[in-house]
Amino acid sequence: MTRAEDDVVTWWQTAITEIRPGVIRLRGYAIEDLIGRTTLPEVVWLLLRGELPAPQQADLLGAALVASVDHGPHAPSIAIARMAMSSGVAINNAVASGINVLGDIHGGAGKQAMLLYRAISERCERDIVSLPSAASSEVGERLARKETIPGFGHRFHPIDPRTPRLLALVDQATEAGVVAGHVAATGRAVEKALGEYVGHGVPMNIDGVTAIVYGELGFPPDLARGLFVLSRSVGILAHSWEQSQEGTRVKGPVPKSTPYAYVGPAERALEGRR
Amino acid sequence: MTRAEDDVVTWWQTAITEIRPGVIRLRGYAIEDLIGRTTLPEVVWLLLRGELPAPQQADLLGAALVASVDHGPHAPSIAIARMAMSSGVAINNAVASGINVLGDIHGGAGKQAMLLYRAISERCERDIVSLPSAASSEVGERLARKETIPGFGHRFHPIDPRTPRLLALVDQATEAGVVAGHVAATGRAVEKALGEYVGHGVPMNIDGVTAIVYGELGFPPDLARGLFVLSRSVGILAHSWEQSQEGTRVKGPVPKSTPYAYVGPAERALEGRR
Amino acid sequence: MTRAEDDVVTWWQTAITEIRPGVIRLRGYAIEDLIGRTTLPEVVWLLLRGELPAPQQADLLGAALVASVDHGPHAPSIAIARMAMSSGVAINNAVASGINVLGDIHGGAGKQAMLLYRAISERCERDIVSLPSAASSEVGERLARKETIPGFGHRFHPIDPRTPRLLALVDQATEAGVVAGHVAATGRAVEKALGEYVGHGVPMNIDGVTAIVYGELGFPPDLARGLFVLSRSVGILAHSWEQSQEGTRVKGPVPKSTPYAYVGPAERALEGRR
Amino acid sequence: MTRAEDDVVTWWQTAITEIRPGVIRLRGYAIEDLIGRTTLPEVVWLLLRGELPAPQQADLLGAALVASVDHGPHAPSIAIARMAMSSGVAINNAVASGINVLGDIHGGAGKQAMLLYRAISERCERDIVSLPSAASSEVGERLARKETIPGFGHRFHPIDPRTPRLLALVDQATEAGVVAGHVAATGRAVEKALGEYVGHGVPMNIDGVTAIVYGELGFPPDLARGLFVLSRSVGILAHSWEQSQEGTRVKGPVPKSTPYAYVGPAERALEGRR
Repeated sequence: MTRAEDDVVTWWQTAITEIRPGVIRLRGYAIEDLIGRTTLPEVVWLLLRGELPAPQQADLLGAALVASVDHGPHAPSIAIARMAMSSGVAINNAVASGINVLGDIHGGAGKQAMLLYRAISERCERDIVSLPSAASSEVGERLARKETIPGFGHRFHPIDPRTPRLLALVDQATEAGVVAGHVAATGRAVEKALGEYVGHGVPMNIDGVTAIVYGELGFPPDLARGLFVLSRSVGILAHSWEQSQEGTRVKGPVPKSTPYAYVGPAERALEGRR
Repeated sequence: MTRAEDDVVTWWQTAITEIRPGVIRLRGYAIEDLIGRTTLPEVVWLLLRGELPAPQQADLLGAALVASVDHGPHAPSIAIARMAMSSGVAINNAVASGINVLGDIHGGAGKQAMLLYRAISERCERDIVSLPSAASSEVGERLARKETIPGFGHRFHPIDPRTPRLLALVDQATEAGVVAGHVAATGRAVEKALGEYVGHGVPMNIDGVTAIVYGELGFPPDLARGLFVLSRSVGILAHSWEQSQEGTRVKGPVPKSTPYAYVGPAERALEGRR
Repeated sequence: MTRAEDDVVTWWQTAITEIRPGVIRLRGYAIEDLIGRTTLPEVVWLLLRGELPAPQQADLLGAALVASVDHGPHAPSIAIARMAMSSGVAINNAVASGINVLGDIHGGAGKQAMLLYRAISERCERDIVSLPSAASSEVGERLARKETIPGFGHRFHPIDPRTPRLLALVDQATEAGVVAGHVAATGRAVEKALGEYVGHGVPMNIDGVTAIVYGELGFPPDLARGLFVLSRSVGILAHSWEQSQEGTRVKGPVPKSTPYAYVGPAERALEGRR
Repeated sequence: MTRAEDDVVTWWQTAITEIRPGVIRLRGYAIEDLIGRTTLPEVVWLLLRGELPAPQQADLLGAALVASVDHGPHAPSIAIARMAMSSGVAINNAVASGINVLGDIHGGAGKQAMLLYRAISERCERDIVSLPSAASSEVGERLARKETIPGFGHRFHPIDPRTPRLLALVDQATEAGVVAGHVAATGRAVEKALGEYVGHGVPMNIDGVTAIVYGELGFPPDLARGLFVLSRSVGILAHSWEQSQEGTRVKGPVPKSTPYAYVGPAERALEGRR
């Protein structure tokens, strides 16, 4: 092979997929061995991390992926997919349109919560302080800087029904020795500290609790959004499909008969032009 | 509620998700009941179809979803996600970029294969002919019109290793009474007829066999692409993540040192302009 | 160069752009000659068609591009870009999200209208009939098949203010010998025939009239959507930018306080599972 | 109107577009007045900033928009659009796929260069130093922090042919009193300082010089990427269209016959599973 050919071959280097005629291997496993013998969360884990998880680890990952599948058409990601579908694009375009907006604000809090937990954990080690003390310091400093505490509070749910259920599963996994439980303890310490500062409960939301699950399972913070994307894809697909059955054409955010407020300049003439 | 308000409320009508403060229900099931007690393929089925599947149905769906997760960076969807990541967008944007191209040609053959099987099945009933005869007529007519037979043949694999494995799982499910086996029989009849016409084997590919799985499980053809999107999202995410760890900036299709062929007009002067 | 290298070099063959160190040529013209001496519509034409247009052709193209820039946030493309922006993605992602939904229904009528005009034109030649007669036959047959007539009627405007203005510009260009005027005559014949069939005016809309402009200028029907995309990008960008200045976070289709209608199954228990 | 209705109406508030039956106004101007009497760059400016520019301002904006339209299929944005087109999506999806990757690294340097120029300008005022001195300090500090200097140097062109041409147009506009020329002076001071630090010329690239144009014209840094998106859309559309005429199906980054390097684990058995 010449140097130039070699450059091209190396340009697309990957450690995930080996393809040869008649052969497809993922991380070294033949695809025909994986099919029917591994679950989808196990394969998610394998492709992202290189090894298969223990079954109990995969169950916990699967529970978190189930938890975030959908939160209704008020979410921009879901509404956008439905509007896209009604505009005459294919279902993959509608799903892509929804996923594309899971940005720093709509889908990013999971990563931010993981980084918060990590910051507190590092603070414990660095300053040789207790977890409650480190959590209180970190939360206090952030509140003093007028920052929000990612993963806590919800604009809609007083208590998010997903949180206690996922936390219970983490606790079970901790008792069974599947995970260490440190991140869950950190999350609870944040919730307690935050409640003390603001004078009322600011309960952990879905981002705060999935950040615990992903942290306990050893995923890096940057993947929290990626896993959320996989999960929410399910709801985006379902809403796209439901929309296609409804048959509305060119669905805007509100019915055509509902006006919007125009607040720009009044009518004016175009002068001094051609 | 006034009429106008009611219009807006109805505009976003859905039968999938019920949200009230403290309550999230999917198709009537409380999310906290689903988390940890249902698998991801079960929830995919629930959201798309309204009811939970039997465990064996979910297993077969899960096997098909595992089968299509990835086929390496030669696939446009994967290469695009990697190039996107290297251009400095977030991981949700990279995944959306990959999914967005799973179009009629790259992701659409599953639906087309389902429609082919359905056409043969209808032909059996309409013309009161045997399955081999109907398959032969349908394939023959399409070949005479110079059409490709969707779901058969592969540009790379003499035999796609995913096909026999998934077919074996369908056969097991048929024996267990989970599925009827008619679509699998149709797919095999197509493969046989096609081989006879062209004089050599044109084996069933991943689209042909997942079309069997989705057909046996009762999914409409339009959802074949949607399910492929969910499955391939896993590989797209994994390759996006691997790319982010590689650190290449602005990854084009080939290295910067590899030229491309310019075949347009030679240098010319801009005349008669300002 | 080896055969393998050559394959790669040819894979990305283009007649649009020639790049060598220190050299950028578009369709043979040095970029430094084009900058400041050609207008944006002229360069759009050059890149799409290989040659620069006459100034009057470019003016007409420019007028059509100006006409479609925006139609307010009721349009899915605009609303989606604004919702995307509020979700924390970058402005290129917001613009892409808007463009992505300019599909067959939301952005495709221009092409369909061009094909309608072409069908009538071919009918004149084939059946040796007058333009009014051919238009009447074509429209009548489509109405009998319950088809919509692309490019005519508007869900909102009794008369679309863009139509008479663009038509006047086409008439001026026809008088000046810049275009032939046949497509404009065809469009007007459709409008007349349609009005006679339905018993009241169904005036030409923006798609119907831009189809005339693009047809008169010799663009193929498939590019009608592409030119609409370029034009609407301007409005999508402006609304994305305005949204970023507004500062709303996670903007759904309606305010959080406005409910949507849930029409699925009532609460039910998950039984017979783990 | 009830309070709830009013909330919805206000939710989509805009100062850009006023739409009433038969009326479309952009920033107060009737669309029928704008069509044919304003150029596309003038309308870009109007929608983004609320007022029409002077003709010479619009000419300079137009020149910058022409300059960035295309840089060939080595650019991820262009290659992605071509690969998308070959996968069977519509042209708006292909264009959106290209635009979607104009991220921080591939499309973001214009904004970063504008911020660099602004930082130097503020330094002059704050520290009461000359422009060369401020530029030298700013560049020196960034180099000491191992940062790249946005807008300078090119991986391919020793001298980017777009730079001197656009700079000459800025100089002409400065002489004519259309712009002040301060940002151009700053850009040149950066180029000089950078050359002195590294010992050889690191010439201003297209991002560095369009940042000058947009800065001189008073656009905020955040819009540099937006304007680049508009410009590059033209090239993305042209390449998408050329690809559709080529007819390749499922175009990967390299021909099917060119392998890629697999660097993951060797074949291994799946043990201890179902």
